[in-house]
Amino acid sequence: MDIPLSKLPRRRLLSATAIASVAASISKDLHAEKPKKSKTKGTISKRQTILFQGDSITDAGRDKKNQVPNLQKSLGRGYAWMAASNLLIANPELSLNVHNRGISGNKVHQLSARWDKDCIDLKPDLVSILIGVNDIWHGLNGRYDGTVETYENDYLKLIDRTRKALPNSKLVVCEPFVLKCGAVNDKWFPEFDKYRASALKVATFNNCIFVPFQSMFDEAVKYAPPNHWAGDGVHPSFHGSSLMAHFWLNSVNIS
Amino acid sequence: MDIPLSKLPRRRLLSATAIASVAASISKDLHAEKPKKSKTKGTISKRQTILFQGDSITDAGRDKKNQVPNLQKSLGRGYAWMAASNLLIANPELSLNVHNRGISGNKVHQLSARWDKDCIDLKPDLVSILIGVNDIWHGLNGRYDGTVETYENDYLKLIDRTRKALPNSKLVVCEPFVLKCGAVNDKWFPEFDKYRASALKVATFNNCIFVPFQSMFDEAVKYAPPNHWAGDGVHPSFHGSSLMAHFWLNSVNIS
Repeated sequence: MDIPLSKLPRRRLLSATAIASVAASISKDLHAEKPKKSKTKGTISKRQTILFQGDSITDAGRDKKNQVPNLQKSLGRGYAWMAASNLLIANPELSLNVHNRGISGNKVHQLSARWDKDCIDLKPDLVSILIGVNDIWHGLNGRYDGTVETYENDYLKLIDRTRKALPNSKLVVCEPFVLKCGAVNDKWFPEFDKYRASALKVATFNNCIFVPFQSMFDEAVKYAPPNHWAGDGVHPSFHGSSLMAHFWLNSVNIS
Repeated sequence: MDIPLSKLPRRRLLSATAIASVAASISKDLHAEKPKKSKTKGTISKRQTILFQGDSITDAGRDKKNQVPNLQKSLGRGYAWMAASNLLIANPELSLNVHNRGISGNKVHQLSARWDKDCIDLKPDLVSILIGVNDIWHGLNGRYDGTVETYENDYLKLIDRTRKALPNSKLVVCEPFVLKCGAVNDKWFPEFDKYRASALKVATFNNCIFVPFQSMFDEAVKYAPPNHWAGDGVHPSFHGSSLMAHFWLNSVNIS
């Protein structure tokens, strides 16, 4: 969103009125010029629908009673909203529709159970999925008997089903991640790394875009402690969410 | 930061060990490959120094007793940190140094008073300035008698001085902004728009990169109310800061 500086006058003695007029025209240009030259942005085209799916990290307190595309209340307060808001605000001429259907506590099989209603029926052009932390966490605390094989098989089936129902849609698989603090202790490892490897396998076998969130957070802890990014090690803070939004947009090539 | 999917095996029967190995090599690739092909990213080159300057919006609670480049505590919790952290984490091979020297309550003349120590001496390759809201606000509440002309003249002199001392540095002028809520009432207008126009004039006359924060927030209020972005209308929330970080990176072409 660079200002076209070449268009601006270079004279020293521009009047306040002229400057205000330039400011107004630039502001207008920012949005008005784009329709002529950009009907696509990276992987996204005009009037496309984007869907974020996952668990509490994606849900992030969204209003499930009013599932209106693009509005903050319906998109929550997490990385999905932060990525969506940047995309919508930076590219109003694309007239995108962004949905969030993440639900706290979900594992892959729970996404599968509601996939027709909460994915296929929305006919998304791009589906982004972040799932996995509950698949291991609920096992660690004795609330679930699924293994990494369950996770991988369920996930492969879900992606296969999505490819068949939405053959032209782009799929994004986000790497599950944890920070080593809060609820995340040594018991998580090395098992957790197998879940990450499974997510990568799912992405690789199906030509999905892969967003390397764990690699990102592994680098992030060099600049701030783990609890800056996620207090309980699982749910990202606003800072963690902002970083995820940046990386998501970069990975999907629509920043 | 796309994963080089073309490098990944497509076979269905990849073992868990092989997948883990692929995961490790991808993680390595993310950082290891870049030095060969990218010693610059947009306007930034390897080992360069970036400086954020401004008032409380830039300061954002940074630790002024320990001014260590790149660390969260020294960079605060605002847009400067959010932009810096993304830049540092996404591009470790660039070995950048990012400083924050924003101080709450500052107006342009207060930046000028500390400019040698807090800008020139740091020899930044890129200086980003966000200043102006106190120049009008402190006038509105009777604590300052400067006008928009004072702001503009002080700002032009500051940039001129910077250009002379750092002839090869890139300069970024950020548009002052307010959201219409909290402390921001009708008394601010149309005067505030003159300050924005002055900032644009300062940027234009000096070939600075201009970051259109007000245009961004004017678009943002279509998706969430003003107080979502800045509770008091002046100081951005984490959501406002994240959006600013995105736009700053895009404007400076280093997202």
